[in-house]
Amino acid sequence: MQTIRTTPSRAAKRVHYDEAIIHPILDEALFCTVSTVIDGQPFALPTAHARKADKLYIHGSVGSHFIRAIENGAPVCVSVMLTDGLVLAKSAFNHSVNYRSVIIFAQAEKVTNEAEKMEALALITDHLIPGRWADLRPTTDSEMRKTTVLAFPLTEASAKVRTGGPNDDPEDRDLPTWAGVLPLKTVSLTPEPASYCPDIPLPDYLQAD
Amino acid sequence: MQTIRTTPSRAAKRVHYDEAIIHPILDEALFCTVSTVIDGQPFALPTAHARKADKLYIHGSVGSHFIRAIENGAPVCVSVMLTDGLVLAKSAFNHSVNYRSVIIFAQAEKVTNEAEKMEALALITDHLIPGRWADLRPTTDSEMRKTTVLAFPLTEASAKVRTGGPNDDPEDRDLPTWAGVLPLKTVSLTPEPASYCPDIPLPDYLQAD
Repeated sequence: MQTIRTTPSRAAKRVHYDEAIIHPILDEALFCTVSTVIDGQPFALPTAHARKADKLYIHGSVGSHFIRAIENGAPVCVSVMLTDGLVLAKSAFNHSVNYRSVIIFAQAEKVTNEAEKMEALALITDHLIPGRWADLRPTTDSEMRKTTVLAFPLTEASAKVRTGGPNDDPEDRDLPTWAGVLPLKTVSLTPEPASYCPDIPLPDYLQAD
Repeated sequence: MQTIRTTPSRAAKRVHYDEAIIHPILDEALFCTVSTVIDGQPFALPTAHARKADKLYIHGSVGSHFIRAIENGAPVCVSVMLTDGLVLAKSAFNHSVNYRSVIIFAQAEKVTNEAEKMEALALITDHLIPGRWADLRPTTDSEMRKTTVLAFPLTEASAKVRTGGPNDDPEDRDLPTWAGVLPLKTVSLTPEPASYCPDIPLPDYLQAD
């Protein structure tokens, strides 16, 4: 939704309020940065997340000051960025980045319903490693009590997307400098088994594509 | 430096104040998230950066509201995270992430000295693409006037690092679930030349290792 806070001062043509653009970015990004204000000072925490419908879930320790501050109503800005490539122009000024980012302004809603809380933890686990949750022993009551789950409505969210090649000034285009895009990608490498169980077969969901 | 703001409420054993740990994380991360407070509300902006000695530089448009707010003294928290791997334990609760993160609390210092400003832009460019700056036409006076460069002292900075395998509860270690680390890495793919100069040879600094 476009609000004063989600209206950028720069590059307005790159901004989107459509959930068909916002949701896939949140789903592809493994981590977000949660920023808040405590006693007038900014604090930021990178953390895992998961989205379901129009809610973003995070979790944390019940003992975390940061989690308690946002649980108690401190205003939050969640940011996510996927970096798809470095954009190399013929001038430094026209260098850019191909990215897909999302910003969410929200206040946390503490998830107290046990079923929703358990589902959110499953979503966060399976967001990082699809298929993992079903392979795990059940979460205990004690573990649940030690964990806070917070939901953020995606009402005031916006995406910003840049794609394509460099936009060089017309008078620079014939300079002999290479210009183009250096694509970036995050990949997973060969899984490394824990020292105490080196011989358990790798599950299907961790096999390379 | 350890201050109230850089003292965590959780996982204190993972925190470091040593620049020999902080600096390489800032140097390896291509992007940071700059969080600030405007009218009591948190705002966050992912952006490129570069470090020299004990300063972190960012740049932005002179027309950006965000840049102007922090240029005018809004308090800032810069966060950086490198994700080295997903840590898979036998319980959801003991899942973790291998990461190296840095948090900096600071106020921006506007770089007004033209030589330092130009050097900062070169550092930011070469931080993303080492060797690029020397290949570019000189930055013009007009481009310099349109660009704000801000420096953050690294005085109040801390790093948080997790490495190694999962820490399962003793009673979980013999469960038949695979446990270990799924390493993550960001890689660059084949460079894609701009449509208007497809035939310029790829410079050495963009050749694959």
